[in-house]
Parts: sequence; structure tokens; C-alpha cells
Amino acid sequence: MDKGYIQVYTGNGKGKTTAALGLSLRAVCAGKSVYFAQFIKGMKYSELDAVRFLKGFTMKQYGRNCFIYNQPTDEDISLARHGLAECTEILSAGEYDIVVLDEINIALYYKLFAVDEVVKMLNDRAEGVEVILTGRYAPAEIIEMADLVTEMKEIKHYYTKGVTARVGIES
Amino acid sequence: MDKGYIQVYTGNGKGKTTAALGLSLRAVCAGKSVYFAQFIKGMKYSELDAVRFLKGFTMKQYGRNCFIYNQPTDEDISLARHGLAECTEILSAGEYDIVVLDEINIALYYKLFAVDEVVKMLNDRAEGVEVILTGRYAPAEIIEMADLVTEMKEIKHYYTKGVTARVGIES
Repeated sequence: MDKGYIQVYTGNGKGKTTAALGLSLRAVCAGKSVYFAQFIKGMKYSELDAVRFLKGFTMKQYGRNCFIYNQPTDEDISLARHGLAECTEILSAGEYDIVVLDEINIALYYKLFAVDEVVKMLNDRAEGVEVILTGRYAPAEIIEMADLVTEMKEIKHYYTKGVTARVGIES
Repeated sequence: MDKGYIQVYTGNGKGKTTAALGLSLRAVCAGKSVYFAQFIKGMKYSELDAVRFLKGFTMKQYGRNCFIYNQPTDEDISLARHGLAECTEILSAGEYDIVVLDEINIALYYKLFAVDEVVKMLNDRAEGVEVILTGRYAPAEIIEMADLVTEMKEIKHYYTKGVTARVGIES
């Protein structure tokens, strides 16, 4: 059995969640199962419909209907902690080949839970489970334990030209 | 109608083709159509099966059954030029909402065709067509005309630990 690796996609550039989605698509094509947990996010994204197309692909959001801009509310914390608890169970059960923890780095950045809890969750996962962590500001502890870390670096972005997120492209 | 943008994913890190795949999945979920051209590549990748799952997703390879390591052969050049001609037609016809030119930067790096030809192809595309170019070594001309450029930067990679590409994860 393959050892499951820890992959991290971080940095200020576009393509972190998108790469996790692409990885999920590729995995499903190879007959693998994927649990895609979205922390922080609670908006209706186009990718939520992917469950209709992809056998073995499950997606769940653990956030509110908006991003956190200032201080997280009690609800933000409660939703994120619920997500952490569910993902801890899923990772230790080993039912899914791949578990994506989308924007978990942002949840850590806002201290919705502690990095030690995430490290423990990753260490306690069932053998062979591949984990993908995304989001800016990946903490040093996560980078340290990861097998693969890619920084998405923004070189040029049309948001700076005033273009907002477009359905089916960014959201 | 949305203006179609030019997106570039370059750099030495993992996640360029994967991000283009994720973007395709998201687009298809939103009812958009995608033409995914793979230059250089001719291997059986898991993602080739995505056409079975995704309505509106077309994928075609314009390369040989191995990567180019040294000098490109006449066959490499011929396959790539055929791809360029087909993609030029597809882009100008505007039949697809999104056209991915996977590893086209590598085709340019190996001079399988000229950057001026790619610039012309992009400029001549039908209105509203979004184009995604991937591959290391994106030339300055392409970065200059792009609306969004992300560099995938390798921070840590398990290939350096001797792990080879695994089906459904990297290939």
C-alpha cells in the first residue's frame, strides 16, 4: 500500500483550491475516493456541483456564507471546530483515499483551532491516506511535517484591474 | 459577455496542470465547455478519463509517449505544430468557453514553434474565450500579455526523497 503523503498548497497566488480540485478529479478518474472539506467557506461555489459528476467525491463546507475579514465570530469558531472534529474522524477511519482540508491554513491563521490539534489529526490518520492542506499562511509546523509544499506566488492578477470573481472561473 | 482572460501557471512547483484540471472541473460544473490540449505529453494520464465524467470537457494530446529530455525529434515538432494549428482553429471558432494549453510553455522552451505564433493565436481568439497556459519557463512575451500569472514555487518535494509519480495523484 502507498504511504499517504501530506501536500501543502500555500502562498498569495491563485490556484491553491483549484489545484486541490484538479487533484481530486485526477484521483476520482483513477478510482480513488476523495473527501473535500472546505474550512472558512460557506458560499455556493460551482465546484459544489462536482459531487453530481464525480463518483467517490464528497464535499462539505465548515464555514459561513462570507469570508472572515476581521475578528472571527463564535459561529466561525464553532463551525470550524465541528469541521476539525469530523475531519479527524474521517482521517482516522481511513475510508477515503484522499482528504482535502481546503483553507485550513486560514482557519489556523485566525486561530479557530490550534496547530497542535491539526498536527495530531494528521499524525493519527489511517495508513495510506493522502492529505492536501491549502490556504495562505501555512504555519511552520505544517510545512515541517509536509512531504510536498508548493507556494503559489502571485506575479500578476487581474483582480488588481478591478475584475471581480466570475462564476465557473474563480467561484 | 465576459471578456476572456489569459491565465498563466508557471514555475518549478507542483500544481500547474492540476490547477488547470481543477479550473476545468469548476467550469464544467458551471455549465461551461472546456477544450484541454496537452502539448509535449502523450502518456496515459488518469485525467484522460475525465472526459467520461464531465459533460462539455474535451481533451487531446499533442505529444509522444515520453517527455523530451534532449533535443526534440521531427515527430515532436510535427505533433506540436499540429496541436498549434488545431488550437488556433478552436480558439478562433470560439466554440469552447475555456481552452487550456497545457505545457505549451515547454513546447516554446524547446522551440517546437515560435512565441510569435502563440501570441498571434491568442490575439486572434474569439471574444470571451478564456485561455489557460501552463508549463515552466513561461516566456516574457506570454507573461506580458497575460491577465493573471501564478508562479508555482517548489518549497519541498517528495520526489527528492525518491518517490516516483503515483497513479491518480501525480499522473
